[in-house]
Amino acid sequence: MSGQLTLYTYWRSSAAYRVRIGLALKGLEYASEPVHLVQDGGQQHAAAFAALNPQELVPVLRHGDQVLRQSLAILEYIDETWPKPALLPADAGGRARVRALAQAIACDVHPLNNLRVLQYLERELDVAAPAREAWVRHWIGSGLDAVEKLLAGDPGTGAFCHGDAPGLADCVLVPQLYNARRFGLDLAGWPVIARIDAACAALPAFAAAVPEAQPDGPRS
Amino acid sequence: MSGQLTLYTYWRSSAAYRVRIGLALKGLEYASEPVHLVQDGGQQHAAAFAALNPQELVPVLRHGDQVLRQSLAILEYIDETWPKPALLPADAGGRARVRALAQAIACDVHPLNNLRVLQYLERELDVAAPAREAWVRHWIGSGLDAVEKLLAGDPGTGAFCHGDAPGLADCVLVPQLYNARRFGLDLAGWPVIARIDAACAALPAFAAAVPEAQPDGPRS
Repeated sequence: MSGQLTLYTYWRSSAAYRVRIGLALKGLEYASEPVHLVQDGGQQHAAAFAALNPQELVPVLRHGDQVLRQSLAILEYIDETWPKPALLPADAGGRARVRALAQAIACDVHPLNNLRVLQYLERELDVAAPAREAWVRHWIGSGLDAVEKLLAGDPGTGAFCHGDAPGLADCVLVPQLYNARRFGLDLAGWPVIARIDAACAALPAFAAAVPEAQPDGPRS
Repeated sequence: MSGQLTLYTYWRSSAAYRVRIGLALKGLEYASEPVHLVQDGGQQHAAAFAALNPQELVPVLRHGDQVLRQSLAILEYIDETWPKPALLPADAGGRARVRALAQAIACDVHPLNNLRVLQYLERELDVAAPAREAWVRHWIGSGLDAVEKLLAGDPGTGAFCHGDAPGLADCVLVPQLYNARRFGLDLAGWPVIARIDAACAALPAFAAAVPEAQPDGPRS
């Protein structure tokens, strides 16, 4: 497949971070188009970006003429279009397991702690900062408790979430752990998760995707 | 693939409802194992069920010895294991579009309105019933606004979300619309969505999956 790749991204968005890892694991070059989620009232709400993604959320990946939305759908597209190295296992049962791990985070943890949700809690429901932070820690904590059990109790778990090569579930887990640390959670309570996180951090593809390494991130 | 199918389900869970539609579209027979999300303090929290799914959420699909979790992962598994009729299009771009539509609901609308989230708003944050209902309507409303634009502005939309046969995005959209009506939202504001909903309702597979038709649903 030919066509230039452009990622509409924000350095601290964990959904964009997932896609950055996937692109790096595939060794794909892409242009970054920063969308600042706070400046200008949120650049994701500007007309030009809303036309690209009516959900007014990052990431969006443009591949030639194709406009791709939703981080998990984008990762599957990347995996289908550039099959090596594979982000999903070859068997249907393994694929179901990896997708379920990814969705346990992407559906049941991350959306609850998204910027727009925290803004609604603050602005519409008058929830103060400490209670908002407790909210975030509650959903991350209970979500990671479940993910830890899913990983610890399954022979499919290897050096990474599934087997001994990084894949789609790792692309989703690692950004969530970045958020967990940001909100003061200690990964020591989830030993399998902490071990996988360390294995990922040692890989150049994961290092290249971290928020602080992005062109729109804070300068050190 | 051989093996008995058992669906752990709750009549009003929209995630379970998605899988019921998928199974019905494939013409697959399955046993229903009801998990009452309110009785007994929530049967999904009982030890036997938590061992099956540490997330303590329905649905779970058992296929022989395989235990499958997360509704979107289950639908993909069903589609890979019993390919006809297909729930996903044949091209990578089409698959990405269908998955993004499904995830726009399954990641960005439904998890915010889940029972456990509404319970947290009530019990931990003292949010009263009218404000909880406004919360639900806000996330469903803004989510469907975006989905309507994604459908109306794309030549891929046909009689259903993608083309002229029902697929994975329809399996996810229809249960969300059931919820929208339950919370008093009028679909007339989303004409493409309302048209697709009516096309789905006319099909026996969708009729068989509605909450009120389930063995654990309320008797008429």
